[in-house]
Amino acid sequence: MDNEVLANKILTLTTDWNQHDYYNGVLRGKLVTTCPDLKIVEITNQVPIFNLNHAAFVLRYSYKHFPKGTIHLVMVNSESQSHRMLAFSHNDHHFVVPDNGIIGLMFKEPPQNVFAFPFEAEGSFASLGSSIAAIDAIYKGKDLLEVASLVNNFDQRIPLRATNENNAITGSVIYIDSYFNAITNVSKDLFDKVGQGRKFEIHVQSQHNKVNTISVNYNDVDAGELVALFNSAGLLEIAINSGYASQLLNLNNGSSIRIKFYD
Amino acid sequence: MDNEVLANKILTLTTDWNQHDYYNGVLRGKLVTTCPDLKIVEITNQVPIFNLNHAAFVLRYSYKHFPKGTIHLVMVNSESQSHRMLAFSHNDHHFVVPDNGIIGLMFKEPPQNVFAFPFEAEGSFASLGSSIAAIDAIYKGKDLLEVASLVNNFDQRIPLRATNENNAITGSVIYIDSYFNAITNVSKDLFDKVGQGRKFEIHVQSQHNKVNTISVNYNDVDAGELVALFNSAGLLEIAINSGYASQLLNLNNGSSIRIKFYD
Amino acid sequence: MDNEVLANKILTLTTDWNQHDYYNGVLRGKLVTTCPDLKIVEITNQVPIFNLNHAAFVLRYSYKHFPKGTIHLVMVNSESQSHRMLAFSHNDHHFVVPDNGIIGLMFKEPPQNVFAFPFEAEGSFASLGSSIAAIDAIYKGKDLLEVASLVNNFDQRIPLRATNENNAITGSVIYIDSYFNAITNVSKDLFDKVGQGRKFEIHVQSQHNKVNTISVNYNDVDAGELVALFNSAGLLEIAINSGYASQLLNLNNGSSIRIKFYD
Repeated sequence: MDNEVLANKILTLTTDWNQHDYYNGVLRGKLVTTCPDLKIVEITNQVPIFNLNHAAFVLRYSYKHFPKGTIHLVMVNSESQSHRMLAFSHNDHHFVVPDNGIIGLMFKEPPQNVFAFPFEAEGSFASLGSSIAAIDAIYKGKDLLEVASLVNNFDQRIPLRATNENNAITGSVIYIDSYFNAITNVSKDLFDKVGQGRKFEIHVQSQHNKVNTISVNYNDVDAGELVALFNSAGLLEIAINSGYASQLLNLNNGSSIRIKFYD
Repeated sequence: MDNEVLANKILTLTTDWNQHDYYNGVLRGKLVTTCPDLKIVEITNQVPIFNLNHAAFVLRYSYKHFPKGTIHLVMVNSESQSHRMLAFSHNDHHFVVPDNGIIGLMFKEPPQNVFAFPFEAEGSFASLGSSIAAIDAIYKGKDLLEVASLVNNFDQRIPLRATNENNAITGSVIYIDSYFNAITNVSKDLFDKVGQGRKFEIHVQSQHNKVNTISVNYNDVDAGELVALFNSAGLLEIAINSGYASQLLNLNNGSSIRIKFYD
Repeated sequence: MDNEVLANKILTLTTDWNQHDYYNGVLRGKLVTTCPDLKIVEITNQVPIFNLNHAAFVLRYSYKHFPKGTIHLVMVNSESQSHRMLAFSHNDHHFVVPDNGIIGLMFKEPPQNVFAFPFEAEGSFASLGSSIAAIDAIYKGKDLLEVASLVNNFDQRIPLRATNENNAITGSVIYIDSYFNAITNVSKDLFDKVGQGRKFEIHVQSQHNKVNTISVNYNDVDAGELVALFNSAGLLEIAINSGYASQLLNLNNGSSIRIKFYD
């Protein structure tokens, strides 16, 4: 990818810092000083601390809505043991993330040409300098080969994937949204491939909570009823019309979803 | 109103999404892509979920401080049953809000010339596309008549208004602020009109919590004492000097306020 | 300091307003209207209410990372009894803060040439108008002497400082960060000056929690072990590798730290 063409002036921010922490001020001050024309757009600075799955989910399903060439900075558990930040381009977007495994959770296909920016400072916020160095290079359209080294020994966590047999899919809740809807790792593609249009029954964590229709809108069922639909990201979502599904059904990240198909 | 003259480059954002939700990223990505010169100013993205009264209060008392022509987007309970967003101009500002009743809570006078942008997509975040379409049209100074239909069958909730007899006003708490002050729906205008300068006694939820003076500043009374004043929005506010009124008096939205006037 | 040269177009925001409060909208609307070219950068709007120490800490350790000439607005307990905002320049940055004592907590050296902007309005959000007036003057490069009065009778709180004898330092926790690390008021300078390279033992709130090494990184000790290091601000920080120190050790602002040196 040609950095110079796509490098642009937008940077998104995804952190696990409390809104009231001073790290926000330090990072933003550095960014405004180093890259004055950069437009900073906050995706979130309230990822639950150390929660790589949450951060990866949020970024995975929002980055493509930004213009090509946008730089996406992730500072979640950034003081990782490997003491370096990673920078790479993927699908015409730029990413700067800690070398803590999150890179394995963010995409279907692994990114190519990953560059390392080792921490130069020591101490409690050493990731800051390396992040700024990586962003500055991308922002200025530099060839990363000239300022950093290609690496392939970075840490990659393996995402929790849905599994399937002939007549069933077993998945998990991977995200709870603002309205207490539970989003699972069962994609519409997988559902269609295994289901082949057959009848089905979805069990949400127990055999008592079941639904056998895919709806289009929340209010396709009566208020208070369980509803299953595919969300805007193409993932199976379990909700209760006008209710708080994750609270009522005690669903958390990792809660199991089982879909049985019948001939 | 002439869109072209007033349409400008500022958009405010009022949502009921948790700060850590990925909807923020999706919306901001779409906005930055579609309207690159738009200046996005967050009013709040932490309206309590589904709370139309809270959202309407926040917007009602802040929108006029923005320049004329500002576009105000409200995404609160936006996946409403009517499946459309509404766009209109009012007091030389532009608004894009869900058709879920909030339009009835936002202004004294109802807005004229309300346009509908039906959801085109299906599913769990269908309001997004319609919102972007409405914003894009306003941002580009288009005549909304050419891209949308005038409607008058939209949902309008009726705000909780203070009532009055000759010698009394009965109102409610409609907002608790950051400092646990309780803001009521009793305006200075109503207070003056009914009171006519007479003596009075304000009962806050019970006859035990009373105050018979309107103060100018919180510290016009001793620390720990109940104080009543008219806030910057012209509404009667109940506070405790150096204390947390809503916690100590157990006040919530809907708590009653009664003012008796004496000759 | 020559305002005209350094006055620039960046304003940082530090408030104790809940994210969902309408004061954010009012302030931002006024700022966008009065100073359209101002770049607003939020440091935090979630300082715990009335907590001057927290606000001063956050600003003290982040402001220098912004470009010279940046205007830093603090609205924390801003409806103070003195009914005025203070504006001054310090280390080539501009500050607008309430006259409530916070000015004494923000810097090592007290600022010179402090100007007062008395509240002109009355009521519950009177600090707003004075803040806007001060910001507008700085933004436009005006000589503050022409629009405000020099004062020296402002309120100054005294920060909690670490004390020392020949063989010991007694300090306190002054900040808990997002990861539950406890940051103290013991600086590396003081530690080196008193310690003179001697052996030492750090007691964290009790003699049971002790550590006798200064580490460079959190993972210089085993997971679950207490670790002491100097953070990026040069302050002694107490953490637990891969753990939540302040929760596990029940540390709060004010918790005591004692360092004994041995020959």
